[in-house]
Amino acid sequence: MTKILKRLLITGAGGGLGKVARERLSYIADTIRVSDIVDLGEAAPHEEIVNCDLADYVAVNDLVAGCDGIVHFGGISVEDSFSRILKANIEGVYNLYEAARKNGSPRIFMASSNHVVGFHRQDERLDANAPLRPDGLYGVSKCFAENLASMYHDKFGVETALVRIGSSYPEATNRRFLATWLSYDDLISLIVYVFEAPKLGCPVIYGVSDNDTVWWDNSSVRYLGWRPTDNSAVFRDRVYADEPDPGPDDPVAIYQGGKFTQDPIIED
Amino acid sequence: MTKILKRLLITGAGGGLGKVARERLSYIADTIRVSDIVDLGEAAPHEEIVNCDLADYVAVNDLVAGCDGIVHFGGISVEDSFSRILKANIEGVYNLYEAARKNGSPRIFMASSNHVVGFHRQDERLDANAPLRPDGLYGVSKCFAENLASMYHDKFGVETALVRIGSSYPEATNRRFLATWLSYDDLISLIVYVFEAPKLGCPVIYGVSDNDTVWWDNSSVRYLGWRPTDNSAVFRDRVYADEPDPGPDDPVAIYQGGKFTQDPIIED
Amino acid sequence: MTKILKRLLITGAGGGLGKVARERLSYIADTIRVSDIVDLGEAAPHEEIVNCDLADYVAVNDLVAGCDGIVHFGGISVEDSFSRILKANIEGVYNLYEAARKNGSPRIFMASSNHVVGFHRQDERLDANAPLRPDGLYGVSKCFAENLASMYHDKFGVETALVRIGSSYPEATNRRFLATWLSYDDLISLIVYVFEAPKLGCPVIYGVSDNDTVWWDNSSVRYLGWRPTDNSAVFRDRVYADEPDPGPDDPVAIYQGGKFTQDPIIED
Amino acid sequence: MTKILKRLLITGAGGGLGKVARERLSYIADTIRVSDIVDLGEAAPHEEIVNCDLADYVAVNDLVAGCDGIVHFGGISVEDSFSRILKANIEGVYNLYEAARKNGSPRIFMASSNHVVGFHRQDERLDANAPLRPDGLYGVSKCFAENLASMYHDKFGVETALVRIGSSYPEATNRRFLATWLSYDDLISLIVYVFEAPKLGCPVIYGVSDNDTVWWDNSSVRYLGWRPTDNSAVFRDRVYADEPDPGPDDPVAIYQGGKFTQDPIIED
Amino acid sequence: MTKILKRLLITGAGGGLGKVARERLSYIADTIRVSDIVDLGEAAPHEEIVNCDLADYVAVNDLVAGCDGIVHFGGISVEDSFSRILKANIEGVYNLYEAARKNGSPRIFMASSNHVVGFHRQDERLDANAPLRPDGLYGVSKCFAENLASMYHDKFGVETALVRIGSSYPEATNRRFLATWLSYDDLISLIVYVFEAPKLGCPVIYGVSDNDTVWWDNSSVRYLGWRPTDNSAVFRDRVYADEPDPGPDDPVAIYQGGKFTQDPIIED
Amino acid sequence: MTKILKRLLITGAGGGLGKVARERLSYIADTIRVSDIVDLGEAAPHEEIVNCDLADYVAVNDLVAGCDGIVHFGGISVEDSFSRILKANIEGVYNLYEAARKNGSPRIFMASSNHVVGFHRQDERLDANAPLRPDGLYGVSKCFAENLASMYHDKFGVETALVRIGSSYPEATNRRFLATWLSYDDLISLIVYVFEAPKLGCPVIYGVSDNDTVWWDNSSVRYLGWRPTDNSAVFRDRVYADEPDPGPDDPVAIYQGGKFTQDPIIED
Repeated sequence: MTKILKRLLITGAGGGLGKVARERLSYIADTIRVSDIVDLGEAAPHEEIVNCDLADYVAVNDLVAGCDGIVHFGGISVEDSFSRILKANIEGVYNLYEAARKNGSPRIFMASSNHVVGFHRQDERLDANAPLRPDGLYGVSKCFAENLASMYHDKFGVETALVRIGSSYPEATNRRFLATWLSYDDLISLIVYVFEAPKLGCPVIYGVSDNDTVWWDNSSVRYLGWRPTDNSAVFRDRVYADEPDPGPDDPVAIYQGGKFTQDPIIED
Repeated sequence: MTKILKRLLITGAGGGLGKVARERLSYIADTIRVSDIVDLGEAAPHEEIVNCDLADYVAVNDLVAGCDGIVHFGGISVEDSFSRILKANIEGVYNLYEAARKNGSPRIFMASSNHVVGFHRQDERLDANAPLRPDGLYGVSKCFAENLASMYHDKFGVETALVRIGSSYPEATNRRFLATWLSYDDLISLIVYVFEAPKLGCPVIYGVSDNDTVWWDNSSVRYLGWRPTDNSAVFRDRVYADEPDPGPDDPVAIYQGGKFTQDPIIED
Repeated sequence: MTKILKRLLITGAGGGLGKVARERLSYIADTIRVSDIVDLGEAAPHEEIVNCDLADYVAVNDLVAGCDGIVHFGGISVEDSFSRILKANIEGVYNLYEAARKNGSPRIFMASSNHVVGFHRQDERLDANAPLRPDGLYGVSKCFAENLASMYHDKFGVETALVRIGSSYPEATNRRFLATWLSYDDLISLIVYVFEAPKLGCPVIYGVSDNDTVWWDNSSVRYLGWRPTDNSAVFRDRVYADEPDPGPDDPVAIYQGGKFTQDPIIED
Repeated sequence: MTKILKRLLITGAGGGLGKVARERLSYIADTIRVSDIVDLGEAAPHEEIVNCDLADYVAVNDLVAGCDGIVHFGGISVEDSFSRILKANIEGVYNLYEAARKNGSPRIFMASSNHVVGFHRQDERLDANAPLRPDGLYGVSKCFAENLASMYHDKFGVETALVRIGSSYPEATNRRFLATWLSYDDLISLIVYVFEAPKLGCPVIYGVSDNDTVWWDNSSVRYLGWRPTDNSAVFRDRVYADEPDPGPDDPVAIYQGGKFTQDPIIED
Repeated sequence: MTKILKRLLITGAGGGLGKVARERLSYIADTIRVSDIVDLGEAAPHEEIVNCDLADYVAVNDLVAGCDGIVHFGGISVEDSFSRILKANIEGVYNLYEAARKNGSPRIFMASSNHVVGFHRQDERLDANAPLRPDGLYGVSKCFAENLASMYHDKFGVETALVRIGSSYPEATNRRFLATWLSYDDLISLIVYVFEAPKLGCPVIYGVSDNDTVWWDNSSVRYLGWRPTDNSAVFRDRVYADEPDPGPDDPVAIYQGGKFTQDPIIED
Repeated sequence: MTKILKRLLITGAGGGLGKVARERLSYIADTIRVSDIVDLGEAAPHEEIVNCDLADYVAVNDLVAGCDGIVHFGGISVEDSFSRILKANIEGVYNLYEAARKNGSPRIFMASSNHVVGFHRQDERLDANAPLRPDGLYGVSKCFAENLASMYHDKFGVETALVRIGSSYPEATNRRFLATWLSYDDLISLIVYVFEAPKLGCPVIYGVSDNDTVWWDNSSVRYLGWRPTDNSAVFRDRVYADEPDPGPDDPVAIYQGGKFTQDPIIED
């Protein structure tokens, strides 16, 4: 079977979703280049391992060279201090897009986050055009990534899927996850559809399975043909049994970003 | 298993849907208090039976005291004279909300009706924000219930599910019901989801199964996780065989409220 | 000049706006029938004075007979107890519409109120289809009037202008009135346009002048040709000088209904 | 079983979809009248065969007489010269509607085309109110048919289903068809639902199966009860293996009309 | 002063608006080429007079050659038989666009008509994306012109202003014209703005003055900078005095197209 | 007269708009604290001059302390290298908001820019919810400011007016400025209204005068009462005479951001 890509770069390959991607995406490219600042173990025959700090402009350029696809899980994925987020998620993402612009415009799967819209209420239904309402510095940095990607698309033709990942874990383990859960199978199929599309553009996609509980409307990206098949409802009874009812006044029951909306500014 | 509620009040428990609720909801509360103005037979061990006229302010207060959930099927559910509707559906609902306000704000499942929007055409697709277009005095009284509930929510925090029930019967028995049918299973599951939700608010919900024929769009309440599973399409062939085609100029084929739109004002 | 109407009924003619209407509308009908439960003084030559309690079904029928236009300012126009609102604003309005239906369907200018949408925030812009969010029992009763009028239009062809009057006074005397002010000149011109329109239907109209401060969008009724000409901005400096800043957390600065949103339920 | 219609006319019965309709729709009418300018072979017992040029006003009148339903597949269905399109698709359709108006207003299933909106991009999601953006003279002629049908509905009560057929073939054989494919089963069921509906009106319907890849939103016609069941996704792997990736700059990957958008004006 | 255009073609220069354009637009081009099938009198020094039947393909090509702007008032502007409309408004417009395509793509001011949306009700507010609802064969032919122009823009880059002219006369002389009136000054300024715009595209513009009575929303073309300044309200009193009230059930008071909606099909 | 504020901070007071603000806003606060990295000359009696680099966290904290209002014109206001923009517009804005959060949450007038939406076409009409489409690194940095302000509002209650300033100069000097021009008078009145509003929230405001040429819709902030009064149309004739027509294919005629959309990435 023909591979979709020649060389796929997976950043953040040592993190939770990076590991999943590394394990399951080997078949879509001739070579998988995996990268992180942490140790990534042994390279499989189809793999190249590159240790790289995203804040290093020159290193990122080398990292991207030769790739025709990028899955970007790198950077910080929780609330953190501004200085650390600035390095990893703002300078790092700028470096990535500059490298892409100079190296043949590989298509990018960008791990954005539901925390770019975390201050919307849970009874609001959001589509791709919902106003950004980030719930912390991490969320703001993901807004930056979305805005930068948009500019590189409009100005330089770099295509990016801006995937606002909900909660991607093996199972949905709390009430909020009933709405935000993205199964690993649905995550992987989404990545494949993003790289298979003849024309991608720069769409916002909510990274979420076909859950009974719905906050997000992905109808604007149905042109990609991706239709998730898993459903968090299978975990509902257990979640209701295990997790106490927070009551209607708890932020975790009010805002889409859940307890991220309560995080303080973390100072260095 | 933990019960969702301590004491659930079911009003109108002697009526069609009240009986269904009484039979099937016993497991969701420690105690079920059933009420009507008609005889309700013997109380089961988990039940309390209270005869109560909703127009009696003091009695309604006593009825509500001690309950943390209310399923309100009480009152008149067809077109009737203004004086009777005034007593049962306007004064009665005011009494219910005053009692709720004074007794710990139990969550309320309010049986509203599709007849609050009955003068919309059948080729219009309505969501929760569709303008009210009641089709008779009954429909107007259900608008009153919705508006009053909205005010008690905004002002006093009483949560209500405003459920615009379509046609809840064992089967869909005419062409209009192909669009409006709500199976008993879907009705009961909706009630359960309403009481299980950590935060309900005061949403408008169309009480309708997952029928192929669709007038109403419930996407705004998908945050509750309720997804009906029955479909009136299984009755379609029989309905088409049994019921003569009304033709395109019959109000029953034009308006969502069907023949209610033709009811005259009933005078005392 | 030809009069627009043969006989115009003004209810609530002893109240604030009723007096304005009585004084300024004499030229639009051959006869003006003024009505209230309070004393209305001497009848001018073109006037008929009728004392009438709106809760009296037979009296209202007589009141309406022979009129081809009604300006309805009657009933209660502030928060009050449910029993009083029920009589004046619910039974009274039903009586009015039944009388209209039986007496040739005179066109009705209904004084509804901004308090039917009083729990919307001031930074929301509302059009005619904004969801009803009444801010008290008075607001709920005006919702009832709107819904009843809608049904009498759809079912019986009675035309009504549902005029959500803001704050109609000689001047705008506080910050909230900068948005809600309706000058007397604009009020009167609106009444005239309502009766002059070849076809009225049953539109929602925000009764508000052309103020710089805007919460409401009347574009849906520009087909009537009414364009208000006064502007509360002329009072802005005085209001800012006279009224202390409430601060951003005062309900009077948050909700469109202002301090009505803080009124308790008034018990008899 | 009772037939839905007395006599159904199928025009263009010698063309691709006309043949499918002829084969599968025999059960819905007592008599099927099939028509084309090409030879239609032997008539089955329930059939009448009429050779007819749609540009012949008198002949079309005779063709329509006695029919209570019409499936209009006649005319030209690809880009062609203006003179030929004028005859077949503009004069022909006018003749058809005049004949319908004069012969009891049979209900019409009009084969419109996705090429009336062919210049919308593939990442746009269109509903029935999307602006017309035809992609050639053929598309313009189908806009004409839609507009003429709309006028005959508003003015004379002729009901038409304006079915913007995607790509109706046994299988989806290229990437664009993953979005546009309409299976024969779904086509036939749509025709049946159109004729069974008590009231049809003059709706725009996208003729497309329940594909994973979606450009068009049919929610406005869910009142008809039609829910397609086939899905082009079953052909996806084969299509991706067989057809080379056009790349993001090929019009076939940009516009909904695909390569029709590149057709030149064909001169006689 | 620099002229906007080198040679402006005005078709239908012998008709009502053609005469106005001929008189007032002399200053915007070095040469004005005026055309009609009727006699156009003497040519002024800056004018060229060409007699031309729009249905003559070759003649239209010659007519357009050398022009960099076209104001198209030619063709039939009232309801007529299909055969006559076909020649003048369908074949004629096709000929015009083919000539434009082959002769340097002059910018076109197309006189479309409010009768492309004539079956919308007067209490509907339409913007540029309102569904087409033509009110007769004339209206359908103007839809054809709009659709053809859209295709020539998308496919060949010909820019057209699709101007849905209301009622352009010296004064507003009936109630419907209070909404539809376009003063000659506003018409002329619109034509100038259309030709002065650096980029026009193919927008729908409602050709209407700044009347108090409004059915149409031109906000989507405010990028052109055109803001009409006349107002039919100055004629309101006279219109109301002169024209009897049609009553709410007269089509002239219901539909935007007025009495065009009642025209029968005119047969040859 | 009572001052609106006790101490107003104006950052970037040495720049173009900073100077205008410094000159004209002296009357709205007891003390004006002006700041820049360039020399600001002599302090007037009501002024405090503070030299401050926005990238210096501690200095910014001192700068903000004691202020109850901030007009933020500081930072870079044209396209520049990422490293410079990072310091001034990303770290600088973070420092400003942290200082605001720790110093009593002064209200902020943030000079955002039309370049956050610069890749929208000029024939698109944008409101406050239009998707961000920045046209360069400068635009991306202003998106960052908007997103950060949104988060500080939702999380910590800091109120900001996000003012997307068009082109604020004494006169409109080119065709694009006909749409984007903001007169100094309108700029100053907007600042005053922002600080006078009882409740501001965190709204997006297009900083633009009441020009005939319109790309932006400010109706969502009409609750503030600000209505600009100047109009670029007075400069139109001169602009058209002075500036050559760019033609429809020049980016300056296509995109709202004009020639910013053509700026390359500036490398250090």
